[in-house]
Amino acid sequence: MSAYDELMERMKDIDLISQISGLLSWDQEVIMPPKAAKLRAEQLAYLSSIKHEKMTDQNIELLLDELEKNTNLDEIQMGNLRLIRNSYEKATKLPNEFVIEMAKHRSMSMITWTEARAKDDFSIFRDDLEKMINLVRREADYLGYDDVRYDALLDNYESGLTVSKLDPLFKNLRDNVAPLVKLVIEKGEVPDMNWVMKNKWGKKGQENLSQRISEAIGFDFNAGRRDSSTHPFCGGPNPDDVRWTTRYSETEPFGSLYGSMHETGHGMYEQGRPRNLDFQPAGKANGLGIHESQSRLWENQIGRSLEFCKWSLTLWKENFPENMKDVGAENLWKSVNIIQPSLIRTESDEATYNLHIMIRYEIEKKLISGEIEVDDLPRIWNEMYDEFLGIEVPNDSLGVLQDVHWSMGAFGYFPTYTLGNLYSAQLLSAAKKDIGDINKQIQDGNFSPLLEWMREKIHARGSIIEPAELIKEATGHLPSSDEFIEYLENKISDLYGFDGNLN
Amino acid sequence: MSAYDELMERMKDIDLISQISGLLSWDQEVIMPPKAAKLRAEQLAYLSSIKHEKMTDQNIELLLDELEKNTNLDEIQMGNLRLIRNSYEKATKLPNEFVIEMAKHRSMSMITWTEARAKDDFSIFRDDLEKMINLVRREADYLGYDDVRYDALLDNYESGLTVSKLDPLFKNLRDNVAPLVKLVIEKGEVPDMNWVMKNKWGKKGQENLSQRISEAIGFDFNAGRRDSSTHPFCGGPNPDDVRWTTRYSETEPFGSLYGSMHETGHGMYEQGRPRNLDFQPAGKANGLGIHESQSRLWENQIGRSLEFCKWSLTLWKENFPENMKDVGAENLWKSVNIIQPSLIRTESDEATYNLHIMIRYEIEKKLISGEIEVDDLPRIWNEMYDEFLGIEVPNDSLGVLQDVHWSMGAFGYFPTYTLGNLYSAQLLSAAKKDIGDINKQIQDGNFSPLLEWMREKIHARGSIIEPAELIKEATGHLPSSDEFIEYLENKISDLYGFDGNLN
Repeated sequence: MSAYDELMERMKDIDLISQISGLLSWDQEVIMPPKAAKLRAEQLAYLSSIKHEKMTDQNIELLLDELEKNTNLDEIQMGNLRLIRNSYEKATKLPNEFVIEMAKHRSMSMITWTEARAKDDFSIFRDDLEKMINLVRREADYLGYDDVRYDALLDNYESGLTVSKLDPLFKNLRDNVAPLVKLVIEKGEVPDMNWVMKNKWGKKGQENLSQRISEAIGFDFNAGRRDSSTHPFCGGPNPDDVRWTTRYSETEPFGSLYGSMHETGHGMYEQGRPRNLDFQPAGKANGLGIHESQSRLWENQIGRSLEFCKWSLTLWKENFPENMKDVGAENLWKSVNIIQPSLIRTESDEATYNLHIMIRYEIEKKLISGEIEVDDLPRIWNEMYDEFLGIEVPNDSLGVLQDVHWSMGAFGYFPTYTLGNLYSAQLLSAAKKDIGDINKQIQDGNFSPLLEWMREKIHARGSIIEPAELIKEATGHLPSSDEFIEYLENKISDLYGFDGNLN
Repeated sequence: MSAYDELMERMKDIDLISQISGLLSWDQEVIMPPKAAKLRAEQLAYLSSIKHEKMTDQNIELLLDELEKNTNLDEIQMGNLRLIRNSYEKATKLPNEFVIEMAKHRSMSMITWTEARAKDDFSIFRDDLEKMINLVRREADYLGYDDVRYDALLDNYESGLTVSKLDPLFKNLRDNVAPLVKLVIEKGEVPDMNWVMKNKWGKKGQENLSQRISEAIGFDFNAGRRDSSTHPFCGGPNPDDVRWTTRYSETEPFGSLYGSMHETGHGMYEQGRPRNLDFQPAGKANGLGIHESQSRLWENQIGRSLEFCKWSLTLWKENFPENMKDVGAENLWKSVNIIQPSLIRTESDEATYNLHIMIRYEIEKKLISGEIEVDDLPRIWNEMYDEFLGIEVPNDSLGVLQDVHWSMGAFGYFPTYTLGNLYSAQLLSAAKKDIGDINKQIQDGNFSPLLEWMREKIHARGSIIEPAELIKEATGHLPSSDEFIEYLENKISDLYGFDGNLN
């Protein structure tokens, strides 16, 4: 067996363990009986320990050292070596005691965060958050960085991402989106939502609508499942077994449908991974930003377009004949596109969403560098919400305590949500040049040209090259926020009947 | 760490792998999307290979050698050492090439068996069955035995079981049950089943009935689940997560309910295992015979009693008000207790069931010893069905090809079904002496005295001692068929109004 084959054999074992963990985690979130939690944690911890053991096996380094000397590698082999070297370094740079301390503190601080949010009392979480910030700073120092400490954390979620790359993207967004939102608040007409609020929305109809639309846009239910869970997500072990969830509310039908389209986007990316690279790092999805681009594409760019509303109206009427009796496509479209500053990120619209992220990004940068400390957080949070969203934060539960991420030590994660939005606009703009009249295709329910384009340009490319390079390969240039801003300007202009001169 | 603790640590790893495999297998049977089969097989094969590696680790033998010299062991420690020695020997006695050959042939012969049964053509399966018989003979020779070769196989499914122990049990059954069945056929009145056949039985009502009854007899749904699958079974990873299934037919409601009670019996045994012995071999359920005793107890001894029908009638009427309008408890009781020789084991009643098993047992004994060969099978099968059940086998699909077991190489498995029936009668008879008026308890829906008795005498005892010893400990004597025969005589006398003089 060649050194490369041996390395791939080792990757196969590691990947199988990840697949198994993926199934156990899905089960835990979706259908596991409550008393099973303790032993499920033991099972997952065991898998995680044997995976860590295999990932840090010194033979991996020996094989890498040998193979990296080779000058005859193809693109896939180079991709695999880069990814394996990266994960080996990451896994071995963190001292064992640190990993254990972090895991323990994570469990603890998720508990105090939950309590603090429920009781609206930041002080309950304060000490654990402070300790978490210090742990994360140490983590960044162990991992190392060239420029600023926060870069080491960004790289955990999107390979190669740095502050110097993100800053201009967020500046562009801040400069352009904040005024747009202001304009809508001042001059936009709020659509009539009475048809939504006066009706009851049965679960059965919502389930059927989710299923039909997910099938129509291209999710393969012979290689996946739809279920419900408190926190919607997309998981499962591998491309043949992709499992997404949504949740249902009887007071409104949009959460379940757009949640379904979002997770379907993630799911189709997983189903489209290059199968000749099964078990190999280069065959995996390419980081969180690109993953989010696929979910946001179908949820927002497609799902909230007028053409999609025209096409899906029939399905709406089939499943809710009474509720939808007097509702037209335009009405539906306006109802799923209400732009309005709000307190909670996860419930925010396409325009304000990235301002929520921008605020978190700016705060994390300063927190990790040491420019601000834990006690500054509530004040700075509230100031920025006032400045960029023009909204007053009434309490910390609806403010700085709203997201789970910091309690988990997931600093550097938030920016990938915005990257996803930017990538989706940039990809859609490029796809439009290749696939013909996309508006007509969407209105006809013909989603396959767009999906096929994504399959070829994104899904099938796995993680062979770095995410920013993949965006460049697919669209002709590196990640930019221009396409997203243009998309938003056009959409707002269409929605609110502004005359095109938005500034 | 002491040698014993080290051994237990190793057992914990092995048990966690089994738990994980248990979940993956459950998922595969119940909810996995179809395309996921191939990679699920890879995941399970990987787990099985690391489990085998850990079970055959030479350090286990070194630890056992050291610990077995110790004369100060308590009962649990002795149980663990006995069980670990046993599984270590079994795992190491079979040569690796043999295990692989067997696994491959098993997959193959299950396919040809399926085809042969579907096409009713024994010749399709003949060669693979012959090869399987030879493999199983070799397996027995590798494993070793004192008396007859078949003993080595029996021990795989019920530790310590031998032909010399089974022969008298089956002789007693044959001598007493066959005449009973004959009597029923000649003199018994067939109950009116029109109320079942004229109605449609909705799935929702059956699900609710299954759920309510499973809860009532004592299954903890916070530590388990009910689902549906083609082949009902009880699985799941551990006592906190026990998952059973049933299946529904719209033409009759008994299959789903009694299937549910059967699997609930298995499930309650799992939930009752001694939790201080988590991860230890001595904390596991004690072989297939005892497991089956728990399922058959609730399915038959309890579930098909007149008192249970009286208690459950209210639930029947709640769930099927129209269908059950004119049905009384006695009517229900007679309908779930029809005794009638039939071709298919899995559909047979309490009385004839063990004759089906006896026939398989006698055939397997001769097949493994070499007294008969594959080509004798269809003829001998049909002759025995004629002799002991008075029934003509019209074709091999309904005869020698009906069970999957032989295609899997599971020779020695069938007798544990009958052991389960015998144990359940023997245990119930012993329990009655301790817990007071069980008939009244059942009629009042008060199942906890019986369950508590089983919890203490059987469930909490895990596998600390051998199954036959456990039966003796719980009932005062070694396994016997007397209690079962007595139970059957009484039941038939009650059901058919015979005057008590059955012979």
